Amino acid sequence: MANYVFGVDVGGTTVKLGLFDIDGNLLDKWEIPTRTENNGAAILPDIAASVQDKMAEKSIAKDDVAGVGIGAPGPVDGAGVIHKAVNLGWSEMNLKKVLTDLLGGMNVEGGNDANVAALGEMWKGGGQGCKDLVAVTLGTGVGGGIIVNGRIVTGANGSGGEIGHIHVEDHEEVPCNCGNYGCLEEYASATGITRLANRKLKESDKDSVLRQGEVSAKSVFDAVKAGDELAVEVARQFGEYLGKALAVIAGVVNPEVFVIGGGVSKAGEVLFDYICPAYGKNVFHGSRDTKFVLATLGNDAGIYGAAKLVLD
Amino acid sequence: MANYVFGVDVGGTTVKLGLFDIDGNLLDKWEIPTRTENNGAAILPDIAASVQDKMAEKSIAKDDVAGVGIGAPGPVDGAGVIHKAVNLGWSEMNLKKVLTDLLGGMNVEGGNDANVAALGEMWKGGGQGCKDLVAVTLGTGVGGGIIVNGRIVTGANGSGGEIGHIHVEDHEEVPCNCGNYGCLEEYASATGITRLANRKLKESDKDSVLRQGEVSAKSVFDAVKAGDELAVEVARQFGEYLGKALAVIAGVVNPEVFVIGGGVSKAGEVLFDYICPAYGKNVFHGSRDTKFVLATLGNDAGIYGAAKLVLD
Repeated sequence: MANYVFGVDVGGTTVKLGLFDIDGNLLDKWEIPTRTENNGAAILPDIAASVQDKMAEKSIAKDDVAGVGIGAPGPVDGAGVIHKAVNLGWSEMNLKKVLTDLLGGMNVEGGNDANVAALGEMWKGGGQGCKDLVAVTLGTGVGGGIIVNGRIVTGANGSGGEIGHIHVEDHEEVPCNCGNYGCLEEYASATGITRLANRKLKESDKDSVLRQGEVSAKSVFDAVKAGDELAVEVARQFGEYLGKALAVIAGVVNPEVFVIGGGVSKAGEVLFDYICPAYGKNVFHGSRDTKFVLATLGNDAGIYGAAKLVLD
Repeated sequence: MANYVFGVDVGGTTVKLGLFDIDGNLLDKWEIPTRTENNGAAILPDIAASVQDKMAEKSIAKDDVAGVGIGAPGPVDGAGVIHKAVNLGWSEMNLKKVLTDLLGGMNVEGGNDANVAALGEMWKGGGQGCKDLVAVTLGTGVGGGIIVNGRIVTGANGSGGEIGHIHVEDHEEVPCNCGNYGCLEEYASATGITRLANRKLKESDKDSVLRQGEVSAKSVFDAVKAGDELAVEVARQFGEYLGKALAVIAGVVNPEVFVIGGGVSKAGEVLFDYICPAYGKNVFHGSRDTKFVLATLGNDAGIYGAAKLVLD
């Protein structure tokens, strides 16, 4: 039986790699640049070379490695085919097969980065001990990962867990990046919170610390903590949208726990003061007791989850 | 290897039973009354006796039966415990264990009736050949079943697939049966369609065949087929709510197919003319090609799915 497993998280500018023992202890982690030129042709060869270098450095034999898991930013189906990764320059490619070949036949599993991060949080993060979990990443956009019975919900073509594009507002006039109107991402991402705050500042003539300096998700929640009334109104709007969306998700998959991560989650548990009332108001009673926790693995969730992909 | 399997679907007035071969051919089906007196104490013993009578009648030996699957109207968790079944008088009970004991140790699996029906439609109905499927039952209420990778999404406490209580309207003043406001069931069930129609008849002074006779989901869709303008407006509202809700569900689990069943689905494919435009408008592009089909097993979906529970 193998003792080691690699987890790889491919981002638009850097690739994060981790070497783990099969109990999930992180033994080493490092990064390489993501070379997106030539439609990202060098990315997988660079990853394979980096994994092989690490094996040589640590004198790890090939048959002592359970495999290499890889998360990438795009829809990845159950066969390990990524259907498009705009940020990397990739069009449709069989991640699993190409990387296996580059690694001389090593076991490879692939998944969408947000889904894989959710698996990481289940394995070693905020959702430890749970097997039905929804991870929500509040960053520039809103990402998600749905875990049912310990496994990622990939969906028919790798679009499972695309919760940033859940429709939550019927009267939005500004389109989302996806082209639709009223997606969750327009209100609950860092960008969305900033937008809500700027809108509120324009509509209201209330005094606010947000009128000084640049408005951001961070400045909004800092102001909330300082008791700024206008910021509290913005937080309430954010919470209404996100709470309502999570209530709908709970109606579909009835998770044990929501794990909230991403840059916005650095605001901490104050987020729950705004999310949970709206959640409670809209959710079916069977999911009323679902827990809310913060993600704990930060940027390492992806490498943890990628490693776990191989071990499942 | 066993050749037979039983599927049991417990309803509020009758229990449906089916005997299948393990390829899913229905060999015999019958019903017994549901005796709800004494908190439904006789229901499981009656079922066990009926199964044993059928085995005697057909000279089927115990070890030639793969097991007995049972669907019941309430949340059933992964361990086969039903948490409440108001219509049957049951409070918390381990369906799997109690029925196994009554059947002298035969293999028993239990699930929620709507979830089990979804599994039936996947196995032998409208969703045949798919493994990621969402079944929607438009009856007196709105029920649902989510199948991911061939398996029912049970959820943390058996409330997976409770899609009738997804929040779809922020401005509703009449509460749903569940106590919340603006649930899908308030607009897309037979009762909900009737309510939408009566509301529209009151608001509008447009002529309509719906002004003659009793308004029902059936009369609304009959009028739609006859080109009645007011009925078409009602169908549009129904489609807006249901299409929007299914788009959200697709954002969570990205199914291959939606299987639409229940009494309202007897209207036929005309439903899709109203559901699909709203779905297309709100759905994330990764799920734009999800198919819509009608359920084909009718009231037998439950016994098929219950039998399949045992074979999984």
